[in-house]
Amino acid sequence: MRILVCNDDGIESDGIFALVRSLKEIGEVTVVAPLKEQSAVGHAITMQIPLRVTENYKNGSFFGYAVNGTPADCVKIGIRNIMTEVPDLVVSGINHGSNTAINIIYSGTVSAAREAAIMDVPSMAVSVTNHGAMDFSFAAKVSKILALKIVEKGLPLGTLLNVNVPDIPEKDISGIVLTKQGKSKWDDVYEERKDPAGKNYYWLTGNLIEADNEIDIDQFAIKNNYVSVSPIHFDLTDYDTFNKMKTWKVEEMLNGKKH
Amino acid sequence: MRILVCNDDGIESDGIFALVRSLKEIGEVTVVAPLKEQSAVGHAITMQIPLRVTENYKNGSFFGYAVNGTPADCVKIGIRNIMTEVPDLVVSGINHGSNTAINIIYSGTVSAAREAAIMDVPSMAVSVTNHGAMDFSFAAKVSKILALKIVEKGLPLGTLLNVNVPDIPEKDISGIVLTKQGKSKWDDVYEERKDPAGKNYYWLTGNLIEADNEIDIDQFAIKNNYVSVSPIHFDLTDYDTFNKMKTWKVEEMLNGKKH
Repeated sequence: MRILVCNDDGIESDGIFALVRSLKEIGEVTVVAPLKEQSAVGHAITMQIPLRVTENYKNGSFFGYAVNGTPADCVKIGIRNIMTEVPDLVVSGINHGSNTAINIIYSGTVSAAREAAIMDVPSMAVSVTNHGAMDFSFAAKVSKILALKIVEKGLPLGTLLNVNVPDIPEKDISGIVLTKQGKSKWDDVYEERKDPAGKNYYWLTGNLIEADNEIDIDQFAIKNNYVSVSPIHFDLTDYDTFNKMKTWKVEEMLNGKKH
Repeated sequence: MRILVCNDDGIESDGIFALVRSLKEIGEVTVVAPLKEQSAVGHAITMQIPLRVTENYKNGSFFGYAVNGTPADCVKIGIRNIMTEVPDLVVSGINHGSNTAINIIYSGTVSAAREAAIMDVPSMAVSVTNHGAMDFSFAAKVSKILALKIVEKGLPLGTLLNVNVPDIPEKDISGIVLTKQGKSKWDDVYEERKDPAGKNYYWLTGNLIEADNEIDIDQFAIKNNYVSVSPIHFDLTDYDTFNKMKTWKVEEMLNGKKH
C-alpha cells in the first residue's frame, strides 16, 4: 500500500513524525508537507509564486519532501509530480488541535485530505484535541487502524474521513464513534491594541460556543472522550434550499426574459 | 438596508467598484476588502499576524476599509468591529473569473460570503467568467436584483448564494437559472523550470475538464450564456456515507472496546 502523508503544521512537527512512524508499519510512505506551519489556511492553493520542493532529513535519514506552499499544494504536487504512482491513500496530520464543527472550514489539515478526495484518492485527516506538547502515539495507532479499514471497505469518490482524537490516556478513551459535523461556532473577538507609533492593530481571539449535545456529533463526541470519525465531502450544494428556491422563479428576474 | 461589500481581488479592483456603485442605489454600503489580491486563498483566516485596517479613498472620496488579510478576515472584522450594526446582507465580488464547480472550494470570493453565512448574515458571492478587462455593469445589475430578492425572500441560516455571470453583452444572455455545484475539475500540471542557479521550481497550470452537461449545473449554465444562481452551505457532512458507514462498526475498532 502506497500512502502519501501531509499536514498543516509543517514537516518539522511532532505530529507528522508520529504518523509516519505508525503508517510505515502497514505501507510505503511518501511525505510531502509544508516547509512552514500553515494552520487556518483553509483550502488555499499557491498560484502567484512558484513552488520549491526540498528534501527533508531527520536524524540523518531522508524523511520526505518540503514544499513552500499550502497543504493542498503539497497533495497536488505530491501526486502529480513527486510520486511515480497515484497513492492508495492520503493521510493528513496528526494535527495539533481539533478540527471539528466550524473549524473544518478553516482547517489546513482537512484541506489536504479534501484535495486528495478531489483527485479521487481515498483520504483522511487526523487531529488531536490539544495545542500544546502531547503524546501522539494513540492517535497514530488509530490512524493505522482506520487506514487499513479505508483500504478494506473503500470510500465513495469525493468522500474523506475527518478523524479527531481526544488528548487523554488511551485507557480513558470511551470508544470510537461515527459522527456528523457539529454546529458549534466561534464567538470572534478582535482585540484592539496600539503599536509604539500609536496606530491600531487587531488580534483575532474568541471562544468556541458549544452548540452540540449528541454523541454522533464530532464536537460533542470528543468532549466526551470518544474518537470521532466523520465522513465529509466537497459538494457544497444545499439541495433543500435548491428545491425550495424554485418558488423564487429566478428565470423571471431579468425583466421577464425566460429560458 | 445595510450592506457589507467584500471581495478577493482587493479594494482597488474594478469589480468591487462597479458592485458598490450599483448596491448604493438600494442601500447603505460599507466596504471592507483586502488591501491586496487574495485569489485562491480558500477560507483562510489570519491568526499569526495582527490585522491592520486603513481607510481607502477613490477620486478624493472615502470608499471603504482595507484590511491586510483574507476575504474571510474582512467579513469577520467588518461585522465584529467596523460596522456599528450587523448588516442585512453581505455581497462578495464582483470577481474577475468564474467560481463554479470545483473552483468554489478554492475561491476567496465565495469564502467571504460563506463567512457571512457562518455569522448568520444572508450573503452572496458574484463572479464574472473572464479574467481580463471587462464591463461589470450587467453583473452589477444582476447583483442588485438578487440582493433585493434575498432580502424579500430570505435565506435559511447557513445558506448563501453563489452567482456566476457570463462575460457577454446583456442582449446575448439566455436568462437566469437556479443551479447546483458542478463536477468539473482541474487537470493540474506543474510546469517544471530551472532558475538561474540551476535549481528547479514549479508553476501550477492546467485545464478545467468539463464534466457537466445539464443546464441546472453551474459550469454548464454559464457556458450556455445563463446567469447561474446556486444555493450552497457549509455543512460538509456526507450523510449518505454516514448512513452506509454504520456497517463499518467503527465502535468495535479499538480491540472490541465499545461505547
